Amino acid sequence: MSEFHRIPHVVIVGGGFSGLYAARSLASAPVRITLIDRRNHHLFQPLLYQLATAGLQPSDIAAPIRKILRDQKNLTVLMGKVREIDPAKRTVRLSDRSLGYDYLLVATGAKSDYFGHNEWERHAPGLKSIEDALEIQSRVLLAYEAAERETDAERRREWLTFVVVGAGPTGVELAGALGEIAHRTLAMDFRNFDPRETRVVLLDGSDRILGTFEPELCQKAARQLNTLGVEVRTGARVMDIDEHGVQLEGDRIAARTVLWAAGVRGSSLGGSLGVPLNRRGQVVVRPDLSIPGHPEVFVAGDLASLEQEDGTLVPGVAPAAIQMGKHVAHNILRLAENHAAEPFRFVDKGSLATIGRARGVAQFGKWSFSGIVAWWLWLVVHIFFLIGFRNRLVVMMEWTWAYWTYSRSNRVILGRSWVYSAERSIGRLLNETSQSDGDDPYLP
Amino acid sequence: MSEFHRIPHVVIVGGGFSGLYAARSLASAPVRITLIDRRNHHLFQPLLYQLATAGLQPSDIAAPIRKILRDQKNLTVLMGKVREIDPAKRTVRLSDRSLGYDYLLVATGAKSDYFGHNEWERHAPGLKSIEDALEIQSRVLLAYEAAERETDAERRREWLTFVVVGAGPTGVELAGALGEIAHRTLAMDFRNFDPRETRVVLLDGSDRILGTFEPELCQKAARQLNTLGVEVRTGARVMDIDEHGVQLEGDRIAARTVLWAAGVRGSSLGGSLGVPLNRRGQVVVRPDLSIPGHPEVFVAGDLASLEQEDGTLVPGVAPAAIQMGKHVAHNILRLAENHAAEPFRFVDKGSLATIGRARGVAQFGKWSFSGIVAWWLWLVVHIFFLIGFRNRLVVMMEWTWAYWTYSRSNRVILGRSWVYSAERSIGRLLNETSQSDGDDPYLP
Repeated sequence: MSEFHRIPHVVIVGGGFSGLYAARSLASAPVRITLIDRRNHHLFQPLLYQLATAGLQPSDIAAPIRKILRDQKNLTVLMGKVREIDPAKRTVRLSDRSLGYDYLLVATGAKSDYFGHNEWERHAPGLKSIEDALEIQSRVLLAYEAAERETDAERRREWLTFVVVGAGPTGVELAGALGEIAHRTLAMDFRNFDPRETRVVLLDGSDRILGTFEPELCQKAARQLNTLGVEVRTGARVMDIDEHGVQLEGDRIAARTVLWAAGVRGSSLGGSLGVPLNRRGQVVVRPDLSIPGHPEVFVAGDLASLEQEDGTLVPGVAPAAIQMGKHVAHNILRLAENHAAEPFRFVDKGSLATIGRARGVAQFGKWSFSGIVAWWLWLVVHIFFLIGFRNRLVVMMEWTWAYWTYSRSNRVILGRSWVYSAERSIGRLLNETSQSDGDDPYLP
Repeated sequence: MSEFHRIPHVVIVGGGFSGLYAARSLASAPVRITLIDRRNHHLFQPLLYQLATAGLQPSDIAAPIRKILRDQKNLTVLMGKVREIDPAKRTVRLSDRSLGYDYLLVATGAKSDYFGHNEWERHAPGLKSIEDALEIQSRVLLAYEAAERETDAERRREWLTFVVVGAGPTGVELAGALGEIAHRTLAMDFRNFDPRETRVVLLDGSDRILGTFEPELCQKAARQLNTLGVEVRTGARVMDIDEHGVQLEGDRIAARTVLWAAGVRGSSLGGSLGVPLNRRGQVVVRPDLSIPGHPEVFVAGDLASLEQEDGTLVPGVAPAAIQMGKHVAHNILRLAENHAAEPFRFVDKGSLATIGRARGVAQFGKWSFSGIVAWWLWLVVHIFFLIGFRNRLVVMMEWTWAYWTYSRSNRVILGRSWVYSAERSIGRLLNETSQSDGDDPYLP
């Protein structure tokens, strides 16, 4: 790439909201960009729960990064996993090569956090990737198949009990969708039991759900969940999770399907930057989103921890990731022109959560809404921010369809063989064994 | 199910075209039906190549069997794998129970046949299931990702060479789609090479492609493939397939991606019926589709081998499977009313194959078409036969979209972790280890 030899090289690790918006903001800048991601696709995480509950299909909420950025001529997309970053040498190391950089953005996001109980993960999958969502979808659908085959009433009840741990927006949206599946989608599909016997329990350790919303809205959300048959339990401390249920302080819930929406921690790549992390594994960034001692290295999105003036942290939500990505691009350009980088300020445009079909809560500054109004707001906002016109179109149609029919059209349970070979292919691709590291079991 | 104790019990194994149409044909009959499938979904196999080439998503061509048959009150769907059939005792054995039957239809279809070279399978996947299709899709997409990372010209050429073995309709459709992906879909997506350098080779051992069509149509099909940049090689004997290519008699093609569309054989369940199989593992049925010595046991679809009056076998195509399924239902009713079963006659309504976008060949008796006319016929027929209004709608829209944009919207490469757990879940579901048998590596 000799024609680039005088142009600064920007390396972006991660094609999530931060990485994508940073790349786009540099489209007409005098830089050359290399965007590296372990996956070939950008994922619209706010709709991931719809995939987990058979409402949407993978390509409705994900698109190939190189297709999204196809027309950006100053950018190259590489699919691969960054093994290590060396801020001193200004290099990132992949399995088969090292890349030098003038400016670096690390935006590899977060993963589910089990608060030191990683053994719970296999019994209670989290929801961070398409694979997580498909795993949850197949567990939920297989639980009903098992209930149809089960002859023992006790064991059938276990199959028909679903527990969601963590009542933030993701947990609330999952629980609401599970309630709807039981009472609407599958209501007529079985012969040996009535899916409406299904029990959905939403647990949270704190004293209310949707902690970031106003108390009044939280109560409304809880009431809306109840109408969907979801049992909300606050102040519930999870002591243990196994294949047959959840052990609470002084109580046990027998359930074959437990979903984890309780916490996240920064992806492990943050550790290789050699700067302080907070206790949730996030990189503590300076006000301009760079890391201490390296003004040319930035961290954005869920991997970054930044305290705002009011003492609270910038929340781990899509709008924050987008704003950070744009701001990093802005600062890279300032540095390239020998100006000082500027501090980042998060503009909170409000919070939204949907609860099943045609319900939800929304909060914009001092304005708050609930019920169908909130749901419509949520729908409009999410479809508007979806990457790609086609996705918006398809998702809108899927929802119109689901809205009138209550059907969830994407209930195909996939088997496993092809992925063994996909694993081989990915191993092949990276010229290495498909042996995975503990951090990201399914990634090259 | 005591209320059923005087009603004959019909067990149908397999929810493909034969099983589904047999079940539907018995909807208002005085029987109770149990339909058993290893999967939760019916698959519209004629469109599988569209999934393999990122044109469609799983739920576009597959739907839950219990949803399709939800309103048929005399029918129960069980997800599970039939281990064994005992025609003497009139029972089918699942992992956790045995079911008695009065009438049995075995319609478990076919799988890829490697003519005694099963070691080729891992290097050249076939196309029989959704997982096969996703495996092929991820291999094709990963090959381009690898080519973008590859610095050595020779090795890049290997990544950019795709070989399809077998030039029946499936092979022709796969090769055509691969040509289109290279020359249209991905043309602008890469920086380090031009996808139009891609080489697609279609091999067949016989002297022409689409052997079942008229010679003149075959030539037209070959010409249409050439315009898509597909290299057609007839009379090509495959001696060996490994990770780096295909060894032919006196020639070698270096390729990292090889796809198998050369042959199928009956699924292994046919062997447990204790009656003669032909050399392709199919059950040789009597003219009424029952098996020798057991007039109450029927075999239909790709698992059945039936000679027609002209000495040829009933072809392994969807229309034949549908007609057989309906005929078995007809014969079961006749037997239930103490009439003699009647012989099956296949009505050939014609053959169709599509070649990329807006090309194809079609043959109806003495009428034959090629080019866009054949393609439109193909489109109409396939959308018409798709199960479920929604699927028709979605597929039609996907294709309208693809037709005008050349884009293939479903290019998300999935990783593997969730399927490990899917495996656990399926194992859990069937209360047994997830150890799979050689026959169907991914199935409970």
